[in-house]
Amino acid sequence: MAVIPGDGIGPEVVAEGLKVLSAAASKHDVALDTTEYELGARRWHATGETLPDSVEDELRSYEAILLGAVGDPSVPSGVLERGLLLRLRFAFSHYVNLRPVRLYPGVSTPLAAPEADDIDMLVVREGTEGPYAGMGGVLRKGTPGEIATQDSVNTRFGVERVVRYAFEKANARPRAKLTLVHKDNVLTFAGELWQRVVREVGAEYPRVSVDYCHVDAATMFFVSQPERFDVVVTDNLFGDIITDLGAAIAGGIGLAASGNINPENDFPSMFEPVHGSAPDITGQGKADPTATVLSSAIMLEHLGLSAAASQVEQAVAEDLNARVKDGSERSTTQIGDDIASRVAEQG
Amino acid sequence: MAVIPGDGIGPEVVAEGLKVLSAAASKHDVALDTTEYELGARRWHATGETLPDSVEDELRSYEAILLGAVGDPSVPSGVLERGLLLRLRFAFSHYVNLRPVRLYPGVSTPLAAPEADDIDMLVVREGTEGPYAGMGGVLRKGTPGEIATQDSVNTRFGVERVVRYAFEKANARPRAKLTLVHKDNVLTFAGELWQRVVREVGAEYPRVSVDYCHVDAATMFFVSQPERFDVVVTDNLFGDIITDLGAAIAGGIGLAASGNINPENDFPSMFEPVHGSAPDITGQGKADPTATVLSSAIMLEHLGLSAAASQVEQAVAEDLNARVKDGSERSTTQIGDDIASRVAEQG
Ligand SMILES: CC(C)[C@H](C(=O)O)[C@@H](O)C(=O)O
Ligand SMILES: CC(C)[C@H](C(=O)O)[C@@H](O)C(=O)O
Repeated sequence: MAVIPGDGIGPEVVAEGLKVLSAAASKHDVALDTTEYELGARRWHATGETLPDSVEDELRSYEAILLGAVGDPSVPSGVLERGLLLRLRFAFSHYVNLRPVRLYPGVSTPLAAPEADDIDMLVVREGTEGPYAGMGGVLRKGTPGEIATQDSVNTRFGVERVVRYAFEKANARPRAKLTLVHKDNVLTFAGELWQRVVREVGAEYPRVSVDYCHVDAATMFFVSQPERFDVVVTDNLFGDIITDLGAAIAGGIGLAASGNINPENDFPSMFEPVHGSAPDITGQGKADPTATVLSSAIMLEHLGLSAAASQVEQAVAEDLNARVKDGSERSTTQIGDDIASRVAEQG
Repeated sequence: MAVIPGDGIGPEVVAEGLKVLSAAASKHDVALDTTEYELGARRWHATGETLPDSVEDELRSYEAILLGAVGDPSVPSGVLERGLLLRLRFAFSHYVNLRPVRLYPGVSTPLAAPEADDIDMLVVREGTEGPYAGMGGVLRKGTPGEIATQDSVNTRFGVERVVRYAFEKANARPRAKLTLVHKDNVLTFAGELWQRVVREVGAEYPRVSVDYCHVDAATMFFVSQPERFDVVVTDNLFGDIITDLGAAIAGGIGLAASGNINPENDFPSMFEPVHGSAPDITGQGKADPTATVLSSAIMLEHLGLSAAASQVEQAVAEDLNARVKDGSERSTTQIGDDIASRVAEQG
């Protein structure tokens, strides 16, 4: 497995993710080989490179990638995001960006009861097209007649594969409900395609009930009726927005996990916390590694190690619950140690 | 003034808005002439028209437009939204979509304290371009090679005028803080233009402190630290999304007001509640007319009747506060009556 600790708190949280992964691996007699890659702000400053082609080629040969965070105030906005993170998502065809939004028992949320009850959804965000395609341009830059465009690209191919994945996930869940989030009354070209694909693929999944919600209304329901949602499928940009909101209602960005998944395993999938590099708290031992640990659990699941994945998730749930009673502040390392011990001690 | 009651609960809430407007007008010896236009689902079914050119021309001659809501399940998604609502916003150059997000004392919110404290922001949403321009298209529809695009159009002209308006608003507020919400690390062409315009126009407003927030993070901060925001300026789509979330945290969509404003008065501005036509509760007297009443207050303010606007807003604040103590359910008409009485009785 390749490890990209990245910038800011990335290396701190990745260290704890690896600690827990190794506890889980040794319980299951799985070998855990890790190779670290230094990519991110430092490398960019030193060499001007975000991701050399040769490194991309090397990364291609791993079973999975664990990534901490990229981004630093010293690097212009977008350089590392597009040159490294999005480049990997696109190059390795991570068309599923899987983001569970689940409020674990005992975790505090900005929502009051009863809204806070029953937050347990799975957002399936498209990861390889939409407004993230990077298409568009600028004309007459710097003049009064300037125009900048930004194009969302939606293909039948790209929409269908992620919608199908979402139906599979919904079909396997007790509630078996799938909600398409879009804005089809305004983004009519893309919206119609998404709606049609959901209708057509949905015909193959009679057990799954299908719902539709405009993205604006979805943000409202996330805070007022989160229990409306089970599996959510949506485009790259809407998915980006609603999963940050999802993180906020489910206990904060310190807990939000994600997997950038290529379901066919033609390329390595990449697992990363939803949070960024948080330069304001870097090096202080304040970062919560839980999101990275939960992302590692998604990785284990993806690699077919379901039992190990469940153990890690169970250990996190226990750790989170213990925080409520305990209340004392723990460092990044302590949280990692505690979760790793719970994994080791599990029956 | 032209009145477009529209669909669903539109006519019910508009009736109460007019009731309160007329109470305020008579206190200030202002004549209130209203002409009603039947536009919306019924007209579309009867004639296939959403907005005949002749009606658009007539509407152009009014000082202002009050709109209830458009949209009905019997009409394909987008037809009325684009053929009527967005058409008016674009034709009348409503480049400012003004949406206050303010939690009135006593109003309940899904947020727990302390997050719920100090929600008082003004979102200045661009209204005439961005992804709402309707540009894009479909190629090879219905085939495996289908592609649908959706283009966001951002002009120096369009961005600068709304950014300038937002700085004026921020400059007039005690905190004098302006936050640009965008996604400039991914939507680099449009994002760079927005950033540059904010920087350049901002140089003319030294009193205003400028902040930037990615749209995904903004949704998180809306629920976890809403006090971060004073004036927010953003594009059409991001503004649509975050103001629904804003409505949710500030007591629900029943209270969220908006003005589609053409600041130069080259065209009539249009005032409407943020909520939709709510067909599920139509005709039951359950709709809360408060959002329409508050939209009417924005209209009064825009027409230069600041004292009347303040009185209406004050009456609403009192009515909302009284609800907490009273607790009994009132009908749409009763709420309108109560607010109108408060306006009439004010000193
Ligand atoms: C860093 C940024 C490019 C990224 C995104 O927009 O996808 C992040 O916000 C995320 O959600 O993983
Ligand atoms: C009805 C729809 C076209 C509209 C929009 O997207 O602007 C609505 O959501 C709003 O916010 O006024």
